[in-house]
Amino acid sequence: MPQNGLDLEQDAALLTAQLVDLPSESGDEKSLADAVEAALRELPHLTVLRYGNNVVARTELGRSERVILAGHLDTVPAADNLPSRLDEDGVLWGCGTSDMKAGVAVQLRVAATVPEPNRDLTFVFYDNEEVEAHLNGLGRLAKAHPDWLAGQFAVLLEPSDGQVEGGCQGTLRVLLRMAGQRAHSARGWLGENAIHAAQPVLRRLADYQPRRKVIDGLEYREGLNAVRIEGGVAGNVIPDACTVTVNYRYAPDIGEDEALAHVREVFADCPVAELTVDDSSGGALPGLSHPAAAAFIAAVGGEPRPKYGWTDVSRFSALGVPAVNYGPGDPNLAHKRDERVETERVLHCEAALRAWLLG
Amino acid sequence: MPQNGLDLEQDAALLTAQLVDLPSESGDEKSLADAVEAALRELPHLTVLRYGNNVVARTELGRSERVILAGHLDTVPAADNLPSRLDEDGVLWGCGTSDMKAGVAVQLRVAATVPEPNRDLTFVFYDNEEVEAHLNGLGRLAKAHPDWLAGQFAVLLEPSDGQVEGGCQGTLRVLLRMAGQRAHSARGWLGENAIHAAQPVLRRLADYQPRRKVIDGLEYREGLNAVRIEGGVAGNVIPDACTVTVNYRYAPDIGEDEALAHVREVFADCPVAELTVDDSSGGALPGLSHPAAAAFIAAVGGEPRPKYGWTDVSRFSALGVPAVNYGPGDPNLAHKRDERVETERVLHCEAALRAWLLG
Repeated sequence: MPQNGLDLEQDAALLTAQLVDLPSESGDEKSLADAVEAALRELPHLTVLRYGNNVVARTELGRSERVILAGHLDTVPAADNLPSRLDEDGVLWGCGTSDMKAGVAVQLRVAATVPEPNRDLTFVFYDNEEVEAHLNGLGRLAKAHPDWLAGQFAVLLEPSDGQVEGGCQGTLRVLLRMAGQRAHSARGWLGENAIHAAQPVLRRLADYQPRRKVIDGLEYREGLNAVRIEGGVAGNVIPDACTVTVNYRYAPDIGEDEALAHVREVFADCPVAELTVDDSSGGALPGLSHPAAAAFIAAVGGEPRPKYGWTDVSRFSALGVPAVNYGPGDPNLAHKRDERVETERVLHCEAALRAWLLG
Repeated sequence: MPQNGLDLEQDAALLTAQLVDLPSESGDEKSLADAVEAALRELPHLTVLRYGNNVVARTELGRSERVILAGHLDTVPAADNLPSRLDEDGVLWGCGTSDMKAGVAVQLRVAATVPEPNRDLTFVFYDNEEVEAHLNGLGRLAKAHPDWLAGQFAVLLEPSDGQVEGGCQGTLRVLLRMAGQRAHSARGWLGENAIHAAQPVLRRLADYQPRRKVIDGLEYREGLNAVRIEGGVAGNVIPDACTVTVNYRYAPDIGEDEALAHVREVFADCPVAELTVDDSSGGALPGLSHPAAAAFIAAVGGEPRPKYGWTDVSRFSALGVPAVNYGPGDPNLAHKRDERVETERVLHCEAALRAWLLG
């Protein structure tokens, strides 16, 4: 076994511990990517591809359908929580246990132990998920080698508490700038107060009735919120600028352009001097009505729920591949000093996926 | 003549230049205070008192009325604009020319040349006007020796463009804090948006009809303005706090307590979690109906106007002494690199005061 050699014979829980003990903070994934690639190349039923520190492995069985199991190799920086530690209750502690080396361990175990799945499989291991979007390995793969990501359905093994989370919301962040005219506050009538001008914007926000949209049986609740407001020059000056940052989280039945048009319409008659798009990422349809997804949900059980927040499933969605989140970790423990995962859940996740792919 | 000896025989314009060439940045007034004290002690008709770098000189003629002529000795830091320079148009350039060594020169000339005024006179020269309020020499004198400042009327020779500016507005600054509950903006309904909660506050401000109050023939225009707003945690978080800083500038017929009560009432039914007073300085009544003031205005001419902004006249007002600003400098040139004063105006101011005190 090469140095850092991964032992895919051990169960997913033990393998999780081994992965956690190979630190792979974003930007520093090479050792782990090398280890993953080497382990996969030992498996004769897989074709292995590599792009940067992104590793893709595929079965080529000529099945009528291909599904993708994807996970990121990187973690946030460790916080005095390495190496991993298994406690007497079967809980594995350490950086990346939940987000998402438990999921990566399940991917690797399925890769090693299901040589003849009922659907062709593509395993994707990518880097830089925890940092700026333009570095994201899945996004870079989608640009450089979209064919490597082709398929009818994708499962992203991000921590979801063992629940299927379908699709994801889109998110749009805009800056609304109000203008005014400076003056000494002792002679306020000579100026024009840009903070006061923000009042209609805040009123629209306070009065806004967010949409609830059911897609594939999942209810998406939208939201339109001010997430920042800034205005003011000095304690005795009528301010000439005030900026409200508004975040629109929207159901994935509308696209980025429609979302922006909606926001423009909401504030159409407010005295906004300038509207700037700060951030925009489209949502992802859950695609649960697709046969592969339906079979997946039947196999793993539970009640699918909508994914709030934005995740990499929308990168698959943008490629026309319906995708869900399904992983053993607890998302609320991600990025925390006391990050941990129950090993029983890791084993359960591995078993559920195997059942789906062998059923 | 001692070192730095001031020559009170020269006219006020030449004396201004001599004063400007004795730099006296706030905190560094000792040399100038020493020179002023020494020059005044040469005048047998004056009683001279000193407290720190504050110098007070009084006639003791048993007149029925006493008026005060006050000015500060300090300047803002020089900005490569020392020593002074007199140009061919009779304009004197340099740090402190306008704010307010021209005024101090006029005080000193009146002290030297009007030994038998029709009213008893108190000359006040004080330090640290340009810095934090608690250091202000006039304020410290008012606490330590209020009797030194007793009188029926005061003229502060701050730059007022040769116009009488009556009294001053009061100013109150409060922080209005709105509370909320943090949540991920993708699940906004789990939180409570503190920025949205600021909407009724901004509405009150936008709708506010400021009072106009005529006092002693001067119209004071009030104002209630947001001068700062801050809220927000991160681009994807429902904010749990938003703070609006509101500045109330009010006519001097109400006091600090009434001003605060008014502001509390304006926002009474807004969802303000906490109202904190950030700054409060009462106004000053113009007192122009007082006989000494009326005689002063008749003597110096022009149409009195209200003083917007807060000035040291309100320190006299707090002692029960009506006060006005009247000085030769242009207030718009104060604190500027190209600070200057027209020497003709300095001479005019000196002549006007002398006419008032001899008339």
